[in-house]
Amino acid sequence: MAKPKVNIKDVAAAANVHPSTVSRVLNPATRSMVSADVATRVQQVAAKLGYSRSSLASGLRTGRSYTVGVIIPDLSNPVFPPVVRGIERTLSAAGYIALLADSDNNPKSEQAIFDSLKARHIDGLILATAHTEDSVVAACLEDRMPLVLVNRTTDEMDVSEVVNNDELGIQLAVSHLIGLGHQRIAFLGGPENTSTGSGRLQAFQQQGRLGKFKLQADLMRSCTAFTEAAGLDGMRLILESSRPFTAVIAANDMLAMGCYDALAERGISCPQDISVTGFNDMPFSDRLSPPLTTLHIQHDELGVKAASTLLEEIRDPGMVPRTLTLDPQLVVRESTAKPSNQ
Amino acid sequence: MAKPKVNIKDVAAAANVHPSTVSRVLNPATRSMVSADVATRVQQVAAKLGYSRSSLASGLRTGRSYTVGVIIPDLSNPVFPPVVRGIERTLSAAGYIALLADSDNNPKSEQAIFDSLKARHIDGLILATAHTEDSVVAACLEDRMPLVLVNRTTDEMDVSEVVNNDELGIQLAVSHLIGLGHQRIAFLGGPENTSTGSGRLQAFQQQGRLGKFKLQADLMRSCTAFTEAAGLDGMRLILESSRPFTAVIAANDMLAMGCYDALAERGISCPQDISVTGFNDMPFSDRLSPPLTTLHIQHDELGVKAASTLLEEIRDPGMVPRTLTLDPQLVVRESTAKPSNQ
Repeated sequence: MAKPKVNIKDVAAAANVHPSTVSRVLNPATRSMVSADVATRVQQVAAKLGYSRSSLASGLRTGRSYTVGVIIPDLSNPVFPPVVRGIERTLSAAGYIALLADSDNNPKSEQAIFDSLKARHIDGLILATAHTEDSVVAACLEDRMPLVLVNRTTDEMDVSEVVNNDELGIQLAVSHLIGLGHQRIAFLGGPENTSTGSGRLQAFQQQGRLGKFKLQADLMRSCTAFTEAAGLDGMRLILESSRPFTAVIAANDMLAMGCYDALAERGISCPQDISVTGFNDMPFSDRLSPPLTTLHIQHDELGVKAASTLLEEIRDPGMVPRTLTLDPQLVVRESTAKPSNQ
Repeated sequence: MAKPKVNIKDVAAAANVHPSTVSRVLNPATRSMVSADVATRVQQVAAKLGYSRSSLASGLRTGRSYTVGVIIPDLSNPVFPPVVRGIERTLSAAGYIALLADSDNNPKSEQAIFDSLKARHIDGLILATAHTEDSVVAACLEDRMPLVLVNRTTDEMDVSEVVNNDELGIQLAVSHLIGLGHQRIAFLGGPENTSTGSGRLQAFQQQGRLGKFKLQADLMRSCTAFTEAAGLDGMRLILESSRPFTAVIAANDMLAMGCYDALAERGISCPQDISVTGFNDMPFSDRLSPPLTTLHIQHDELGVKAASTLLEEIRDPGMVPRTLTLDPQLVVRESTAKPSNQ
């Protein structure tokens, strides 16, 4: 199906209003929220440009299944269940059911799940699996399938997302370690084709460029997956470089667990010899040995906002995509301490 | 819809064969697996009693959705993801998709999910949520919905299930503790309206009656849920009784975590003062502090067998329900030791 030649942003620019105003004016249910003169101007511009709300919504089915697909990348990562709980509770209150599927970090599997869910006439999709370039995201946009990304985002601009402030998170971890006296800090990153992988790496590099510590290429590794096994492999490579360091920032808690294992293999103790931080504050991170210093992300709120945004998109197909960024908080536990040479 | 007056067991009894033989004979695809004279006898008896395979299958829809519902009681218990992975892999290989839902240990929610899944024309259901008396199980049987229970079972006999040998598991835990020298053993059980709650309790009591240790009512508590919080509450009650003991068997690993918390509150160390065992060998149980001695259950195999049994039921609605029991193995870690007074 062909995309409309004129989009909502064109109308907004021509009428000198925000795209959300265009959406409100063209939806009879919300028109009264906009002043009469602005509404008239927007309607005239839209008519002139040949843009109507129904043209945007024309690709959508009229019937609803009250079913929403939720695809997560790894059911065995405990960070996802509390996010899913927030999604389910919010959808359920609106009469929707969440159909959950696990892509096992496999893009082919993700595509197959998407095809299956689409054939089952879902009304919308919440993806926790996004890659920076993502064929499922592209397919949703092409199909005009209401879509919200959660936790991870994509390079595609025209999509709603509820994500964490990864830059703030890494900044908090760096400041904590520097405050303890660390100067040589390693970084164990995630896959660079995910926003959480590339964004947290860039935030780390930026902190180095700001002069907070010295960036060393040998001390930065991007792992192949956000898993314990990939974290173990990545940390082994950093240790093999023999470049000295006293702390490591892992891009998530699963990687931090792999990092614990790599240190234990060499008899290096945490935090006495090396401090470790994670990201996510997943369930069980407080029960690890040692309990993990990490960034607490708002698990429930990520789910609640992703679901409520999707419900809005389902009700108003002309809604302008929206980005919501939630701030993480540093949780200091026992995996970080002053460097032993201080 | 009315149940057939004559069921497969009546035919089997009258023909003096196992019900599965009746199923094979009445299914043209499997009739050749049975000797000709037995097949003839079964067909005659079935005709006489007015029983046909189609009468059993008459309640089923003819079209298939290639969609199976999977309801789990608590997505935040890490024991379930590896079971779900086994289910998904097996279903996917047969062209089916699993629609996963989390009942949050709430029977009302379980019923609502069942209704929603049914309205979405699932071909069958895998329940990890069963209670000893379970209205969803009853509804499935009434609807002739192919159904397999996994991990937990019900008092209803006519349903397929893939479960753990809970009796063996508790026996292994008791023998391990007695072998270390423990004589006063407490039991922190699950909800008694689940088979895993009542079955593990009964197995513990049986070991006491066999004279392996002395049963003490004050040292046995059934918790309200298989959660950390319920385990904390239950363990507090046992500790408040002031009856001495040196070890506690928890009916699952989440309860064991609550038990760790209750001991820590009172400054009691594990395993120096009190040994603790769990059940499930859930992911992360090896990373707890101390790493938990527990019963390893066959997570993947539970999922694989549940899914393959369900696929058989979908293909052959006359299939006789089947029980498969998988043996757990004791995994000794650092939460158990000799009692300190030895």
